[in-house]
Amino acid sequence: MFLYTKNFDEQKAKAMEGLRKALAENKVDEDIIPLLEKLNALENYFTTSSCSGRISVMEMPHFGDKVNSVWLGKWHREVNVGEVFDAIERHSSGQLWFLVRSPILHVGARTMEDAVRLLNLAIGLGFKYSNIKSVSHRKLLVEIRSTERMDVPLGEDGELWVSEDYIERIVAIANDQLRRFKGKLKRLEEEIGKL
Amino acid sequence: MFLYTKNFDEQKAKAMEGLRKALAENKVDEDIIPLLEKLNALENYFTTSSCSGRISVMEMPHFGDKVNSVWLGKWHREVNVGEVFDAIERHSSGQLWFLVRSPILHVGARTMEDAVRLLNLAIGLGFKYSNIKSVSHRKLLVEIRSTERMDVPLGEDGELWVSEDYIERIVAIANDQLRRFKGKLKRLEEEIGKL
Repeated sequence: MFLYTKNFDEQKAKAMEGLRKALAENKVDEDIIPLLEKLNALENYFTTSSCSGRISVMEMPHFGDKVNSVWLGKWHREVNVGEVFDAIERHSSGQLWFLVRSPILHVGARTMEDAVRLLNLAIGLGFKYSNIKSVSHRKLLVEIRSTERMDVPLGEDGELWVSEDYIERIVAIANDQLRRFKGKLKRLEEEIGKL
Repeated sequence: MFLYTKNFDEQKAKAMEGLRKALAENKVDEDIIPLLEKLNALENYFTTSSCSGRISVMEMPHFGDKVNSVWLGKWHREVNVGEVFDAIERHSSGQLWFLVRSPILHVGARTMEDAVRLLNLAIGLGFKYSNIKSVSHRKLLVEIRSTERMDVPLGEDGELWVSEDYIERIVAIANDQLRRFKGKLKRLEEEIGKL
């Protein structure tokens, strides 16, 4: 069975090249970079993709249709209500949603033992939805994920279903969630050396 | 490393006793029972907990505080707006949320190979958030989970932030999501014998 990743070092080298390119193109969320660097400095892990968590306003033909979704606004930090209103004003058709997504990191591990050690550290630091996403001799992939999330329908086909007051309320809740998961990311960054 | 579950048959016997008890007390969602029976008939798997997916109205001191949360309404089927209004009327304090949760099944596997086979079947049938939840010699646990979800704040401390129209809209979307994940459960039930 799949106890370890074949060609781990080759895969890591390739992933690191991809990361360097993404960094050069400013495609990596800034506040997650120190954590990525610490993780990649460990010899038994490498990161393949990451998001530091976000608040967004999205337009989609119907829920779950990622391909045809359009972000009208996307922030990896606290937002103010004005920014959210501006995004909502760009809405024209399809379902309009206000979303919060917790951080996600995908991390390749050299052995199943390494994968489990990272998994347990992450769960212990509050990333309770962390798990082993795929298992094969080509890949042992740990997913680090937290529980914060919002999925709020706001309107459809140009029509808004909620009041400005309501949007103020949900922005406050979203910022609460964001502060919470950013705190968890910070703790993970501090503790990751323990692996 | 953890290639197989120690004392698998003992653990399965214990889990099956728990399931029989839960069934006798009507604590198992009815529409998931055939799937549980098919899974447990396989010699390399046993179910430890399950939910067939639900729509609910919940009151909680703040988001994520599960301990102090109270369900004002909970349904494992399509709901009508009247039922949701009735639940909302029971709200008195804390944050009020309208929630959709996709089905979750936790399944013990005899070996890592069995775990991965089930994981890949589930992902292929649309349960895209499926993963391996824990890995130890005491437990190889597969989590089967889908993507449908809603987390909509409705009000706080007795005050409602949204209109009746809005609630009608989100109930329609929730029922859409419910039909979708019930369909996936049905397909999983049909395909599970392939393991």
